[in-house]
Amino acid sequence: MSGRGYSSIPFADVRITSPFWRERLDVVLERTIPSQHAKLEAVGILDSLKLPKPVPPLTIPRNSHGFTMQVFWDSDVGKWIEAASYALAHRRDPGIEAKIDAIVEDLERAQSPDGYLNCWYNGREPEKRWTNLRDNHELYNAGHLLEGAIAYYRATGRRKMLDIMEGYVNHIASVFGRGPGQKRGYPGHQEIELALIKLYRLTGDRRRLELARYFIDERGAQPHYFNEEALGRGEDPASYWAGTYEYNQSHIPVREQTRMVGHAVRAMYMASAMADLALELGDEGLRLACEALWRDVTLAQMYVTGGLGPKETNEGFTEPYDLPNETAYAETCASVALVFWAHRMLHLDLDGAYADVMELALFNGALTGLARDGTHYFYSNPLESRGQHRRWDWHVCPCCTMNVSRLVASVAGYAVSAREDGVAFHLYGGFETAVVLAGVKVALSEKSAYPWSGEVRIRIDPEAPATFDFALRIPGWAKGATAAVNGERVALAPANGYATIRRTWRKGDVVTLDLEMPAERLYAHPNVRMDVGRAALRRGPLIYCVEEADNPGAPVQTLALPRAARLEAEWKADLFGGAMTLKAPAKRLVPGKGGGALYSTEPPAARDTALVALPYHLWANRMPGSMQVWVAELDN
Amino acid sequence: MSGRGYSSIPFADVRITSPFWRERLDVVLERTIPSQHAKLEAVGILDSLKLPKPVPPLTIPRNSHGFTMQVFWDSDVGKWIEAASYALAHRRDPGIEAKIDAIVEDLERAQSPDGYLNCWYNGREPEKRWTNLRDNHELYNAGHLLEGAIAYYRATGRRKMLDIMEGYVNHIASVFGRGPGQKRGYPGHQEIELALIKLYRLTGDRRRLELARYFIDERGAQPHYFNEEALGRGEDPASYWAGTYEYNQSHIPVREQTRMVGHAVRAMYMASAMADLALELGDEGLRLACEALWRDVTLAQMYVTGGLGPKETNEGFTEPYDLPNETAYAETCASVALVFWAHRMLHLDLDGAYADVMELALFNGALTGLARDGTHYFYSNPLESRGQHRRWDWHVCPCCTMNVSRLVASVAGYAVSAREDGVAFHLYGGFETAVVLAGVKVALSEKSAYPWSGEVRIRIDPEAPATFDFALRIPGWAKGATAAVNGERVALAPANGYATIRRTWRKGDVVTLDLEMPAERLYAHPNVRMDVGRAALRRGPLIYCVEEADNPGAPVQTLALPRAARLEAEWKADLFGGAMTLKAPAKRLVPGKGGGALYSTEPPAARDTALVALPYHLWANRMPGSMQVWVAELDN
Repeated sequence: MSGRGYSSIPFADVRITSPFWRERLDVVLERTIPSQHAKLEAVGILDSLKLPKPVPPLTIPRNSHGFTMQVFWDSDVGKWIEAASYALAHRRDPGIEAKIDAIVEDLERAQSPDGYLNCWYNGREPEKRWTNLRDNHELYNAGHLLEGAIAYYRATGRRKMLDIMEGYVNHIASVFGRGPGQKRGYPGHQEIELALIKLYRLTGDRRRLELARYFIDERGAQPHYFNEEALGRGEDPASYWAGTYEYNQSHIPVREQTRMVGHAVRAMYMASAMADLALELGDEGLRLACEALWRDVTLAQMYVTGGLGPKETNEGFTEPYDLPNETAYAETCASVALVFWAHRMLHLDLDGAYADVMELALFNGALTGLARDGTHYFYSNPLESRGQHRRWDWHVCPCCTMNVSRLVASVAGYAVSAREDGVAFHLYGGFETAVVLAGVKVALSEKSAYPWSGEVRIRIDPEAPATFDFALRIPGWAKGATAAVNGERVALAPANGYATIRRTWRKGDVVTLDLEMPAERLYAHPNVRMDVGRAALRRGPLIYCVEEADNPGAPVQTLALPRAARLEAEWKADLFGGAMTLKAPAKRLVPGKGGGALYSTEPPAARDTALVALPYHLWANRMPGSMQVWVAELDN
Repeated sequence: MSGRGYSSIPFADVRITSPFWRERLDVVLERTIPSQHAKLEAVGILDSLKLPKPVPPLTIPRNSHGFTMQVFWDSDVGKWIEAASYALAHRRDPGIEAKIDAIVEDLERAQSPDGYLNCWYNGREPEKRWTNLRDNHELYNAGHLLEGAIAYYRATGRRKMLDIMEGYVNHIASVFGRGPGQKRGYPGHQEIELALIKLYRLTGDRRRLELARYFIDERGAQPHYFNEEALGRGEDPASYWAGTYEYNQSHIPVREQTRMVGHAVRAMYMASAMADLALELGDEGLRLACEALWRDVTLAQMYVTGGLGPKETNEGFTEPYDLPNETAYAETCASVALVFWAHRMLHLDLDGAYADVMELALFNGALTGLARDGTHYFYSNPLESRGQHRRWDWHVCPCCTMNVSRLVASVAGYAVSAREDGVAFHLYGGFETAVVLAGVKVALSEKSAYPWSGEVRIRIDPEAPATFDFALRIPGWAKGATAAVNGERVALAPANGYATIRRTWRKGDVVTLDLEMPAERLYAHPNVRMDVGRAALRRGPLIYCVEEADNPGAPVQTLALPRAARLEAEWKADLFGGAMTLKAPAKRLVPGKGGGALYSTEPPAARDTALVALPYHLWANRMPGSMQVWVAELDN
């Protein structure tokens, strides 16, 4: 069996029935999407779309580089429409649709006759359009508006926004390229590439794919476009505030890149587009580059939560094994985008290694970005806190808010893929869909209490008997897996993380899968200097943390877990509507014979205690307090 | 015996004979002082003294708060003169003296007829003098120039600079105070207080002491002077860039301060002045405030190296037990100033706890700021490095360069104190002096290989038999101490860290002291979350580190030290002219069964190796590489 040829099933064609994701989805539908609209209104972002009008003073002052984050307000609008549209696919909502339609009216009025559409430039400095791709996010904005338009069209069938955006894309295609008189530019912040590929997949218009390919292939070419552009603005390219084009991954052509560098979200969007193009174009060079970058990230630059980018100043990568916990930047957007990339790699190759990382980033690094109440967020996601971290209800750069809501609202799209004679389950957790397999329409209904339990039951209802591959992901964390068809045990021979059952399936067939999901310790490579002598706790796809709310009395950093201590899973029905915690006998370090001295020749004493760990994505939803993912370990 | 009443012996009256300090002193004399003068010249600091002249463009651009570090160039000149003068006390040097005299000529020309002397304001914006004490360091500059003048006078007897500065002090005293028409100001950066007290001690002019008392007592009074001053400049006091007056310790009156906050060097200079004033004025309120602040610093805010101030943004303190290692700011100046403060506390109370911290900061946090070659420096002093830290040959803010050179050149002044009928040795390491005790002149000659060895021999030569207390510091680190007088064992009954032998001393008497100095492990209070599961190594007054140069092959962060492993001291004659290293059987952590995976359920494997540790003050003098003070510990 080749693992190739799978495509994802569109999010709108998958229903969610599990309590875990249903609860998150309901919160996003009922609280997040409306509150985000209110915020977009309150901070002036929606108003900025209403052109022409007198130019108001800046809400966000320019920084010392002359940059204001208002230049990418359009993207927030696009992402909100996208998130809302995914939610609408689950439950139509005339109120939300009216709000989107009003925005679309504004966009229509703001669009230039030649198709150009950027509310910052059209409103404030129309003569400067396309003069600073490096910093000013024009193509990034276009990408997000286009993704919003596509999602809204898919969810509702309304195509006005899509038409507007196709007009804009036509304009962009006329401006950029290798033809005479065209600019050899590409985005400073990658994103439009992903949107163009989605547009191609929606419309079949190959020009969109070609434009995406152009942007990816032109990136990092010499003479360097951002140098030329800076000279055109009368600036010295050497005075670039970021110091290096590694910041936006244009330091060398993308095919030559083997180390993931710079701004993590840009890097992930780029890699996602590269994977998409590798698939659509059968481009082995791009595939190899993706694979090299994947190895670099997952072998040396990824937090155990699926967080990416340790450093605040570049919002991105530093060097191998540099993964500080308390100061981790690990932007929510970067984990969201890692889900995007892993999902695309999975369609290049049905390899569980990709699915494992997709799941890790989804359930941990990304999901933690959205508070239980659906209206508070984390932008950066440290793996340790002394209690100074608080979720915020908005951010001067609100990118993460809509990134996490669009991910949660579209999570159904990550669960299942299909090809002509096969279906593959990547995620479990209550997903229902129907696909055509071997020419037969097949209803699939998966039920489980995943991620809390590894017991999965999938009912397969072909309209007529049909022979196809039924591929079940056996997660890397599973300590064992058994399966049965209609109650009869089947031998599993997982290859690359998927166990495939090929047979003639009939209506009412039931596959059960039991994934062993013990609580366990994870250790970092010893080169991760911050985690030496420490263990992280995992159960199934969930990374755990110790939080002061469950371990009161002292900072959780004084907890130590003996290596031999048994970890037990304990269901707490009253915790966030039900959550599996982990419990272990542990030690609380207290001053030893040295008393309260800051330094002493006497080691701390260790008092017996119990440690309670909580899924990382649930932290910081109660009282503020200390938190730690990597717990100190005692050898005995 | 009361521990009170001791005064230090002036640096110029103590000679250094030990190889350890003699080597450092020679380097400062021969390399540091001349190279610092050359730097002051090269970067334009000396030129900035030559007034009047056309105002040249700024060398250091103003930052976003409108601030340029050029405003405190005068202080660098003052500190260089001070450092050079301490060196001159050991060996006169007509070349250096001519350079100082040339600077004094410039200062004389730059001084205003009313005594005001600030080359920045007189050269660039004379109308703005005394309008921004909060930020612009006028009184700080005055203090350093005054300290330089006093040191130069003490070293050479030349009083021209002292006269200039006394004129300036008279002007300052006329401008600031509680009298009619006076400004109720005080320095944004404490320093002048220390200089005024030195001036009082030199001249006996009590007005200097009163002015220092005024500056300390006025600090933090309401209405807040920096608010009034900001309003006077037409600024909103709430827009203060540092956000809080904790930054410069003026948030509340100094006597009410119990937590050390803000900029560490300012805090230490303030505390030093408070201790001096407490002594000179018998001010119990200031003494109690000093003691409270001392407890706060030493119980919760001090690195094991005597470094202070973990954070870069405020160059200062954060909160109890917040002592990150790799990102430690721990400015050299702050450890130098901790030596100042501890030395002054010691004269409030002859308590070995103060001497222990003085010694710790001197031999570790401060001394590491000066490279072996005498021409490279550290500004911040991390306790861990992955190899990214390099010594620099100058700094845009060169405060630390002259702070460490003035400390090394004056180290003799910290060794011995005397009172009418007693002498106290705080430091050992080859110090010779003569003091009058019980009315008799007594020559004292201490010989030792300290800090490498705890065997100390002190010869006592009174001109006539004399009865006095002979107080020997028994360091807190000493695991045992034995002493003999003329070869005959004496019982030691140390009180507060000092063992006092009172007898009638005769010419040729010899006291020998043997301090047990085993290599040992130190543990941090378990609330220091960064150091949980780790040990630091110490031998005598020296804190050790593991550096990649001695432990090649992998980052030193992969070393782990079994708790039971025996530490052995090993003399390396060819290392930096001779240094005691520590050696222990240890483990090198390597990937376990998980292979090279970033995360694995398999713990790392531990391979046998030997660990070699180096005194912390010697690190980063060879090839760049990783370094760590807090080594991971294995329980077995």
